[in-house]
Amino acid sequence: MSQIQATLITIGDEILIGQTIDTNSAFMAQRLNEIGVHVYEIISISDSANHIIQALDTALASSDIVLITGGLGPTKDDITKETLAKYFGSKLVLHQDILEEIEAYFKKRNRPMLESVKSLAMLPEKCEVIRNLKGTAAAMWFQQKEKAIISMPGVPYEMRDFMTRIIIPRLVEQFNTPTILHKRILCAGLGESIIAEKIKAIENSLPEHIKLAYLPTLGIVKLRLSARGTDVATLQEENNTFAQQIKNILYPKYAFGEDDAILEQTVGELLLEKNAKLGIAESCTGGLIARKITSISGSSRYFDGGVVAYSNRLKKQLLGVKAETLDREGAVSEATVCEMAKGTIEHLGVDYSIAVSGIAGPTGGTPEKPVGTIWAAVANKERVVAKKFQLARNRDLNVKVTTTLAVNLLRLLILDIV
Amino acid sequence: MSQIQATLITIGDEILIGQTIDTNSAFMAQRLNEIGVHVYEIISISDSANHIIQALDTALASSDIVLITGGLGPTKDDITKETLAKYFGSKLVLHQDILEEIEAYFKKRNRPMLESVKSLAMLPEKCEVIRNLKGTAAAMWFQQKEKAIISMPGVPYEMRDFMTRIIIPRLVEQFNTPTILHKRILCAGLGESIIAEKIKAIENSLPEHIKLAYLPTLGIVKLRLSARGTDVATLQEENNTFAQQIKNILYPKYAFGEDDAILEQTVGELLLEKNAKLGIAESCTGGLIARKITSISGSSRYFDGGVVAYSNRLKKQLLGVKAETLDREGAVSEATVCEMAKGTIEHLGVDYSIAVSGIAGPTGGTPEKPVGTIWAAVANKERVVAKKFQLARNRDLNVKVTTTLAVNLLRLLILDIV
Repeated sequence: MSQIQATLITIGDEILIGQTIDTNSAFMAQRLNEIGVHVYEIISISDSANHIIQALDTALASSDIVLITGGLGPTKDDITKETLAKYFGSKLVLHQDILEEIEAYFKKRNRPMLESVKSLAMLPEKCEVIRNLKGTAAAMWFQQKEKAIISMPGVPYEMRDFMTRIIIPRLVEQFNTPTILHKRILCAGLGESIIAEKIKAIENSLPEHIKLAYLPTLGIVKLRLSARGTDVATLQEENNTFAQQIKNILYPKYAFGEDDAILEQTVGELLLEKNAKLGIAESCTGGLIARKITSISGSSRYFDGGVVAYSNRLKKQLLGVKAETLDREGAVSEATVCEMAKGTIEHLGVDYSIAVSGIAGPTGGTPEKPVGTIWAAVANKERVVAKKFQLARNRDLNVKVTTTLAVNLLRLLILDIV
Repeated sequence: MSQIQATLITIGDEILIGQTIDTNSAFMAQRLNEIGVHVYEIISISDSANHIIQALDTALASSDIVLITGGLGPTKDDITKETLAKYFGSKLVLHQDILEEIEAYFKKRNRPMLESVKSLAMLPEKCEVIRNLKGTAAAMWFQQKEKAIISMPGVPYEMRDFMTRIIIPRLVEQFNTPTILHKRILCAGLGESIIAEKIKAIENSLPEHIKLAYLPTLGIVKLRLSARGTDVATLQEENNTFAQQIKNILYPKYAFGEDDAILEQTVGELLLEKNAKLGIAESCTGGLIARKITSISGSSRYFDGGVVAYSNRLKKQLLGVKAETLDREGAVSEATVCEMAKGTIEHLGVDYSIAVSGIAGPTGGTPEKPVGTIWAAVANKERVVAKKFQLARNRDLNVKVTTTLAVNLLRLLILDIV
């Protein structure tokens, strides 16, 4: 089976002047990668006919699939459509059905339709037009013998809908791409290299057609099994078998979920199961733990609220931290953070709590407590567990990593494995 | 003066498989744009000699400047250096001074130095080696007649240091680029089109060599004046004159600062001037306002703390919101949010407060209060001012825009212009 290659072309000045970061290409590359298509090159070019033609020539020399985003708006500088029509020996004609859809789109939203918007229904005669369910600019599929050239609008959520709904399934069918099945195991609180050490024997036993990748982000490591072959059922079973072997070693202490699980959601579900309410007391994380917990829709069912006790005065007043503890041990200490966690249970009237106090940086460090020294504690009505993290990054990253580690510590407490 | 063109080449599989979003290119493009260099094309390619050579051929056909990032690590797949050396008719040799620096780098950090790291000191004989002050892989400057080809490591903060410290100043000198001076005016709480309407007369009066751009992000619009010419003093004076004209219309009601100002920092400075303390009461923003305020290092001087009162119980208990207000008006109402703001002043013992309550979505909307209905209030000991925002985005964006609008509302209260 020969490797199918793709080139991604992004059209528009916003990227070339650095105003917009190209996030579309990463999304498309991931989706193509998942179906076994190799992305050969990613190119960003300007809205110029010559440049578009040159990029298409280059792309078609190396690739079977060319995905183009951007340059489809109704303004006059968007010449992508016209250039594509000419390149593929066609011309722009009015697509009445698309015009009606665009009119309906504006009518439904009670918005007036500018004359210029009508140009969105002018599309190449010889191409397959794909309806936009999230916006107004249609996508175009040009088939040149074996090769597929697809042009989509650059608006990220419109492009994502096209990719997921139509383009990826159609490419799988047309190119008979190898089946690649993925299975992810999500870990928190443990570095990539220690995880690798723990599951070395499993990794070494993987057959040639199954790969394991480590994808670390802030405090979380995603392990991704990718099985490549022809029979879906077999691949699925193999992935599940190896995932189970990995989970036998890592779950629940170091792994918290599978596939698209989100740590804050996992913890939310555990709280719901116990019919328990959570409260949070933050110092150096400044509200980010609460923000992450509430980023889950429906979190009001288990999250009652929190306190950002930035000053020592509010640590005492709102959480009942003792003045002598602050004087003797300092705000960044095991004793203080434990009192914060216990105080949250009592003063906020909740069942579980997370508390954090640390030196996020860049200032505030001392020889004994350098920047990156963070204490976290989690508590319920019976127990309080504290842990020290020694981080070494900048203010923003220290806060983000701490948030993940503290939420994970709560998970361990709820599961009673810490 | 002919336009100087650049191509950016990113080397490495992480971008082609979609694991990493290419943020480096946007940074480099911005910096080049600021010195009047036009970015012609941005290309991401794999770690392969043939592909690197092909990309260099293409880039040098169109561009005077080629910036390459990535592919400089000590692992065996990083063949960028060798390929560049061959391409420019050179070979890799040991650079003793660089080796000593790398050894010193590891020694200083008390970290053992792997043998493979020594390969970082193997660099092309015929190129200018530029020391890395933030890491270990050096940058290389190849001069081919008039053209400059520069290879840098892909680690963002290392690349940024090379760009700012050496590459941009050297390119300005070598290419005698036009001087382009920028001046930014930062606005909050007003849409792009309304701002444009207010300053239309000024925009129409700008001379040909001064451009005005509108750069909107979540709740903030940056206005950027770019003056192009030869005489720095004149350009600076012109920029300042037009910036002052714009500020005369927009500042302080709609504009909060200039250039690199950050809204939360501006508000922090206003609080410091008044020697006043801030407290925050959040519901739908779930902690993000506190998080943004505390993202400023030194915010503990004016930020005492906050409450994330997600449940009505905690709104009553921690902030003193009346049960009858919640029953009669609901949690998302002017009355509730005003009581939250006043309650923060009283219960937290602060001088100023921000309070927010709204329906971030996707659930919780009603016909009277659809998703995106947000009430914000700001207070001091004398006054409380409330405002309703009707937003229409997703949960995450609603929370982010609300945060900016609420912090800006506090700014207006402190300045006594609301």
